[in-house]
Amino acid sequence: MITIKNIFVNGKRQDILIEENKISKIGEVKEKSDIVIDGSDMIAIPGLINTHTHIPMTLFRGVADDIPLMDWLNNHIWPLEAKLNEKIVYYGSLLGCVEMIKTGTTTFNDMYFFLESIVKAVENSGIRAFLSYGMIDLFDEEKRKKEIKNAEKYINYIKNLKNDRIYPALGPHAPYTCSKELLLDVKELAIKYNVPIHIHMNETIEEVKIIKDKTGMEPFIYLDNFKFFDGVKVVAAHCVHLTDKEIDIIKEKNISISHNPISNLKLGSGIAPIPKLLEKGINVTLGTDGCGSNNNLNLFEEIKVSAILHKGVNLNPTLVKAKDAFNFATVNGAKALGIKAGKIEEGYLADIVLINIKKPFLYPKENIYSHLVYAYNGFVDYSIINGEIVLENGKLTKIKDEEKVYEKAEEAYHDLIN
Amino acid sequence: MITIKNIFVNGKRQDILIEENKISKIGEVKEKSDIVIDGSDMIAIPGLINTHTHIPMTLFRGVADDIPLMDWLNNHIWPLEAKLNEKIVYYGSLLGCVEMIKTGTTTFNDMYFFLESIVKAVENSGIRAFLSYGMIDLFDEEKRKKEIKNAEKYINYIKNLKNDRIYPALGPHAPYTCSKELLLDVKELAIKYNVPIHIHMNETIEEVKIIKDKTGMEPFIYLDNFKFFDGVKVVAAHCVHLTDKEIDIIKEKNISISHNPISNLKLGSGIAPIPKLLEKGINVTLGTDGCGSNNNLNLFEEIKVSAILHKGVNLNPTLVKAKDAFNFATVNGAKALGIKAGKIEEGYLADIVLINIKKPFLYPKENIYSHLVYAYNGFVDYSIINGEIVLENGKLTKIKDEEKVYEKAEEAYHDLIN
Repeated sequence: MITIKNIFVNGKRQDILIEENKISKIGEVKEKSDIVIDGSDMIAIPGLINTHTHIPMTLFRGVADDIPLMDWLNNHIWPLEAKLNEKIVYYGSLLGCVEMIKTGTTTFNDMYFFLESIVKAVENSGIRAFLSYGMIDLFDEEKRKKEIKNAEKYINYIKNLKNDRIYPALGPHAPYTCSKELLLDVKELAIKYNVPIHIHMNETIEEVKIIKDKTGMEPFIYLDNFKFFDGVKVVAAHCVHLTDKEIDIIKEKNISISHNPISNLKLGSGIAPIPKLLEKGINVTLGTDGCGSNNNLNLFEEIKVSAILHKGVNLNPTLVKAKDAFNFATVNGAKALGIKAGKIEEGYLADIVLINIKKPFLYPKENIYSHLVYAYNGFVDYSIINGEIVLENGKLTKIKDEEKVYEKAEEAYHDLIN
Repeated sequence: MITIKNIFVNGKRQDILIEENKISKIGEVKEKSDIVIDGSDMIAIPGLINTHTHIPMTLFRGVADDIPLMDWLNNHIWPLEAKLNEKIVYYGSLLGCVEMIKTGTTTFNDMYFFLESIVKAVENSGIRAFLSYGMIDLFDEEKRKKEIKNAEKYINYIKNLKNDRIYPALGPHAPYTCSKELLLDVKELAIKYNVPIHIHMNETIEEVKIIKDKTGMEPFIYLDNFKFFDGVKVVAAHCVHLTDKEIDIIKEKNISISHNPISNLKLGSGIAPIPKLLEKGINVTLGTDGCGSNNNLNLFEEIKVSAILHKGVNLNPTLVKAKDAFNFATVNGAKALGIKAGKIEEGYLADIVLINIKKPFLYPKENIYSHLVYAYNGFVDYSIINGEIVLENGKLTKIKDEEKVYEKAEEAYHDLIN
């Protein structure tokens, strides 16, 4: 049992009681707890949910900026990815988990390779994660069979861990790299194991054109045509270039969008039509993407950029309000992944972040919810994930030697580039 | 004398010697210093220069978000500004100085009222500032005379302080609020006292239209027509909506631009054509604007947004490179204001920021200059301004009680809204 005393939460000062991995009471807590946190100088917010990451790519931070996308992929990212191994992926992932925990993220939705290493980093750091193996068959049948086998193997591997912070997911890379047959296999597995699908959609003009040239249809229409979205839970990352008809499909099929504004800007991909999606009532969430294209995992930046960008592009300061952007990163993310999180309410998962307000950009403190969206820039003070304190007064609890994580990540980077 | 030992600066580990308010040596320092800072875990960068602020507006942080510009001004900002007094402005300014120092800014260029209070906050915090009294005559001759008298009074007041961190400047608000006669008086004073001019230009479509309707010319053309820009140093804030002919004038007259991407996005004003300005070789600098429209003074955010925004809007990831954005906030800012700063070189002002690299988003550390632009999110560890340590291991040195600044700012906010 953990009690957080006298914390500013849901608009007033009260106590929070945590039992096992859940919030069991909000109000006046009289129960005796093993752990009591004095919340007097702090505010509690739901832990942030990052719905699109490639976590080991922390090691690619800054290796190639300011260059065209295909140059970036062909000459930098893919050659490095070919050199990855379990150890490198472990330390890259651990560095990512440290960064996310320290900046208030409590759940992330990942797509990558070497999942055993990512699992280990998630286990050791205390964060919550949906992990999918990134599948690409490039329309080759042999490769497809191998990819599907791998994906199913990883679902079972993760299920067998019986770690209630780690969930399996399915990660077909994108319609321009995955065959229709692969996608149909994915759908079947998603239903069989009741796991979400995590896929890149409509990120660039070029990839939309590839699908259109090949099938005569835009990507969402093409996938909908073979009923890919029916009966499954899908998180579609990016969705920068969409037709109105595709937006209708997104709405109709209850697809959640992972908006990645910073990555989309940095890679020159464009700007997703978020105000239009909101108007339709579509579930918009936020993702950082990998650190090769962001270059960090600080979801507070995504919240701010998503709140300001669409105002500026559309010359309309009333679009994407502070509350919308905050919801993207919390309750909407939870809805996309199907977990009872993103709110601080009784019965919800105890994924809670505490922020000491004695920071210059949090004053005057009356407008604190606005500040979390428009002024806050990072480090949080406490993070409780699944009922466990993983960050205490800015210090990681499960990872005992934070500096060693940096050293090991640095070593891994050198293994990678040499 | 201050020696920073074994610091990573200008691409390698070396020492920095500071004598009086200047950098006197970079390399191996054998001289005995009063103060020695161990730089082993740190990197040194030039202090950041924020070229457009309204510093007391920290108290307006979050008071009105997500609403149309005229509603924001008429119903929120101007009524609050009417209630300002010396005490309120002092604590708002002090809060702003604290925030800037802690996030690596060593110089700011401000336009506001109650300059005695702002001066006091600058004196007490240790930051460097260019301070101008914001002039608006609304085409009224009596008001013009009063404004010009005030401006000249403040120039003399600041000159007489003989504080080498505090510089006078002239702040005619904008062409749509200031008469031609006022602007010509300003030009005369700028030449007489050799001080820079700080003015809002072409921020919104509406104000450009006002000038065009009135004069038949776009704002820069109108001002150039009566030779406003000749023989003076001008920092033009915003410059969102520009014609090619205006861009030519900006280049020809050596006008510096203060790019305020976050404020321009948040207020729905639009996006300045920075890549075009860079192509012409125009001096682009960065500003946060006031906290009513940002809502913070953290220039690292401006650096990142300026580096990613134009890539995304123009679908071209090669625009505004990391080095460009870093220069906006350092050497270009210094050039705009006419101070020998923005670089860590012998003979330059000792305005230096030190950052401990043991932070998750600064690894792998080989690409640290990229991280400062694309991954870093705020708090610095040391700030040396004008040869004086004003921030030491994250703690302010001249302001002894940081929490009291927050309390006093909170009180000032309540005085303002009640």
